[in-house]
Amino acid sequence: MKINTNSKIFASEVQMEGAINVRMKILIGPEDGSGNIIMRHFFVAPGGNTPFHQHNYEHVIKVERGRGIAVDEKGNEHEISEGQSLFVRPGDLHQFKNPNKSDFEFLCIIPNPEKIV
Amino acid sequence: MKINTNSKIFASEVQMEGAINVRMKILIGPEDGSGNIIMRHFFVAPGGNTPFHQHNYEHVIKVERGRGIAVDEKGNEHEISEGQSLFVRPGDLHQFKNPNKSDFEFLCIIPNPEKIV
Repeated sequence: MKINTNSKIFASEVQMEGAINVRMKILIGPEDGSGNIIMRHFFVAPGGNTPFHQHNYEHVIKVERGRGIAVDEKGNEHEISEGQSLFVRPGDLHQFKNPNKSDFEFLCIIPNPEKIV
Repeated sequence: MKINTNSKIFASEVQMEGAINVRMKILIGPEDGSGNIIMRHFFVAPGGNTPFHQHNYEHVIKVERGRGIAVDEKGNEHEISEGQSLFVRPGDLHQFKNPNKSDFEFLCIIPNPEKIV
């Protein structure tokens, strides 16, 4: 059993093109021995957003704090907040935005992309 | 994109032998289209516990509310609380207990056991 403490994990700025004011921590990943599932914690600052993008693996998401906007594969916007969970299918376009004045945080769990053929 | 709301999902009593006062919700699973990753929300009431058990798939865990005890593969107890995440390796014995007076809640993410050969 490996136990990590969120406050001791460094948050790095997400460098992906189109990402604005988004930081990310890997809560559990390959360095903890997890070869199949990676759990990341995203922090979207007020005014920030992830890119509108897609990839060949799914997202399992849980809102941890605040509220924000999830943009779906058709470009439709949905307000989401603490207590909501989301599934983004492999290949579906998606984006997360924070138009509010307080932080918007969510967990985003993915399969290990290196294992996807 | 599929969006679920925690408060609208029914929590069922965990029937596994040795489980006491533990309820569980599936936040994202096969019914949402997620074939690889299942995200469950566990509620361990005061005095409750999961069984001390093991299985051939891993657990990725994040404490969502309160605090409790994680028992590791050697039987050692670790106090865990909100902000902590855990990885339980496939095959490792583990247990979660709530000796406190308020609810202890955690997310427990697993690969789809039907996909494990």
